[in-house]
Amino acid sequence: MKIYKGNIIFAEVFGEYEIIPNGYIAVENEFIYGIYEDFPSDLDGYELIDFGDKIIIPSFCDIHLHAPQFVNRGLGMDKELLDWLEFYTFPEESKYEDLIYAKKAYKKFVKELWREGTLNAVVFGTIHRDATIELMDIMDEFGINGYVGKVNMDRNSPDFYIEDTESSIKTTLDFIEQSIDKYNRVKPIITPRFVPSCTRELMTELGEIADKYDLKIQSHLSENRSEVEWVKELHPESSSYYDVYKKYNLIRNNKTVMAHCCWNTDEEIKSMAEDKVFVAHSPYSNTNLSSGIAPIRKFLNNGVPVGLASDISGGHDISIRSVISISAQVSKMRWVYLNSDEESLNSAELFYLATKGGGAFFEKTGRFKEGYYFDALVLDDSNLLDINPRTLEERLERYFYIGDDRNIYKRFSSGKELKEIEADC
Amino acid sequence: MKIYKGNIIFAEVFGEYEIIPNGYIAVENEFIYGIYEDFPSDLDGYELIDFGDKIIIPSFCDIHLHAPQFVNRGLGMDKELLDWLEFYTFPEESKYEDLIYAKKAYKKFVKELWREGTLNAVVFGTIHRDATIELMDIMDEFGINGYVGKVNMDRNSPDFYIEDTESSIKTTLDFIEQSIDKYNRVKPIITPRFVPSCTRELMTELGEIADKYDLKIQSHLSENRSEVEWVKELHPESSSYYDVYKKYNLIRNNKTVMAHCCWNTDEEIKSMAEDKVFVAHSPYSNTNLSSGIAPIRKFLNNGVPVGLASDISGGHDISIRSVISISAQVSKMRWVYLNSDEESLNSAELFYLATKGGGAFFEKTGRFKEGYYFDALVLDDSNLLDINPRTLEERLERYFYIGDDRNIYKRFSSGKELKEIEADC
Repeated sequence: MKIYKGNIIFAEVFGEYEIIPNGYIAVENEFIYGIYEDFPSDLDGYELIDFGDKIIIPSFCDIHLHAPQFVNRGLGMDKELLDWLEFYTFPEESKYEDLIYAKKAYKKFVKELWREGTLNAVVFGTIHRDATIELMDIMDEFGINGYVGKVNMDRNSPDFYIEDTESSIKTTLDFIEQSIDKYNRVKPIITPRFVPSCTRELMTELGEIADKYDLKIQSHLSENRSEVEWVKELHPESSSYYDVYKKYNLIRNNKTVMAHCCWNTDEEIKSMAEDKVFVAHSPYSNTNLSSGIAPIRKFLNNGVPVGLASDISGGHDISIRSVISISAQVSKMRWVYLNSDEESLNSAELFYLATKGGGAFFEKTGRFKEGYYFDALVLDDSNLLDINPRTLEERLERYFYIGDDRNIYKRFSSGKELKEIEADC
Repeated sequence: MKIYKGNIIFAEVFGEYEIIPNGYIAVENEFIYGIYEDFPSDLDGYELIDFGDKIIIPSFCDIHLHAPQFVNRGLGMDKELLDWLEFYTFPEESKYEDLIYAKKAYKKFVKELWREGTLNAVVFGTIHRDATIELMDIMDEFGINGYVGKVNMDRNSPDFYIEDTESSIKTTLDFIEQSIDKYNRVKPIITPRFVPSCTRELMTELGEIADKYDLKIQSHLSENRSEVEWVKELHPESSSYYDVYKKYNLIRNNKTVMAHCCWNTDEEIKSMAEDKVFVAHSPYSNTNLSSGIAPIRKFLNNGVPVGLASDISGGHDISIRSVISISAQVSKMRWVYLNSDEESLNSAELFYLATKGGGAFFEKTGRFKEGYYFDALVLDDSNLLDINPRTLEERLERYFYIGDDRNIYKRFSSGKELKEIEADC
């Protein structure tokens, strides 16, 4: 048992901060034992670590990003989705057949997650089994938790980066067998790239595999107008893009995350609420690739679970802190231009989505709650302070807007402090 | 004479990069003497400073920000303009009556401009003469150039932060007399806050003062829908918001900068082009305060000069590098949702606006051109490189998207290297 003292802030109720100034968190091994306003006298004698005026928050959750696109951050930002995939993304992802390349690049990727305080993530790998296992090894080694998928794609993809259906299925089964019991908090996830790149046969098989192994599923949905049109042409038998995934049993209740969701119809939104599909809100990506602005307020009002996502490298910025501010900004533009009934998202609401909201896709993280993993960041915002006194709420919001990785003083994953990762490439 | 060697990138033609790999810039005292692809043999014998593989670009120009709001960055981001002014801005600005407070805060502000490589800026001060002169002193001392205004406001302002008309005029005249010949590259600028806070009498006088001293003018225009409505109510005699400024001779050809311009009519845009009014594009502010998205492509197509602006603290991020990416993003949202004829802005175009575009408001900066000041940044992007070879264009664009102040290796203003400023408060 260890006891940490500091200004504790977390989100339990959507839109509200839970603030405990000079509070205490007791941690027993990897789990939170209790949170206290006053020193818990029954725990007297255990080690007390006092972080003084620093702020302790749950670590960030990123529910959609592409590890192999990490090296492409900030490149090709003047293209739309389908061109961007062809010119930048597929050529890069194809390189991960080379395990030495994969190991180098993935280590740097994991280091960046560490740096920005994202300790739980839902991650796309590539079509390659070995490179994807390598990524999981590195995440496990350095205490970054989450779900990692070997990507499936057997149609409408370039010659140099495509699978045939049979080997796609076989490699996926191998991937699952090799990874499902290998790690404590890193797990495989079924990962059809998106409808246009998966045949009906492949989608059918993936749905069956997900059921058989009781796996979660990640994919993309209604990111871009051309893509939505394309899916309509490819699947005239389905009533919507969402309906295609549904038809092939790729929507598992409370176990599926769909990235983007900029252009879903009201009917789709209703189904997504029933199916408890997580929306991975990726506003950097959606602005960079001229996709659109997801109607997050509408999803939330309809009961669809939502988390934040960097979508590296459609999004250029891996920091979920930074995704908080761009999410507020684009929601304000929806309010101004598209629908004045959709109130914009405020900082407290977005902090909830960045922690408890996205955290609900994982096991026991994103919250400061008894029995949950102690996955936490200690923030030192002393360089952001000014001459005036500021409340804890103001200090946290200011960190969202003008802080950076230098303000993260310590990172804890499963109760253990994570040390800096050595990685250069 | 000194000669600097490195990868030189600047913008002469809108939408194009001028790239000179391993090129040379000769600097004689404060001015650029020449730019060369090969070593200029007639300059043999002068000191050569070799920056190796680093990148040399013109320093950034910010044509609209509020120095006294610096300490408010990242606060109150859940409010709209008029509320935000009342709750956060006016109370903070009123503190600058205290010169000790002003000196401390302004030094930190100037340090941040230095840190992010903004070496030329058009700045709002407060209504206070002495604090504004103090700000100019500090800018001059540390090599940050530009125009600084003592703010005028004599109506619709809170009791604790308002002037009477007569003293507003008198203080402005004092301010000009005291500052106009005091510095080399820091100059006073006429600064009516915005139409709603200036009486007709005050605006009339300010127009006359600007003429008499041949001064530039800065203000705000059509930022927010409620503000535009308010101006319409206050000035039913004018055909538009822009027309109010025009009527009071506050539009001086090629010598006026107007911040925001999100909601201007086609007719206003036509007049602004004739009057060569600079638009200070402030997308962080315009998204944060739910104002809107300025139609920058339209302004440019109509021949209105445009520069980029942080608008601290409506905008939270003082870095013009960072304003480049948000400008691209919001222009893409205009293209998606508002007008598919308004092509979004690409990185090369925005680099032009960040340097030569905004630079045109100042004297001889923003360009690498014989006779211009050597105002430059040397970028070290080695931590942004990856396993793959990247072109200079890709390296620069990546710096825009994922770089930060740590990538600025050296800063030159008027040919002199600027050392780090000591400032803490």
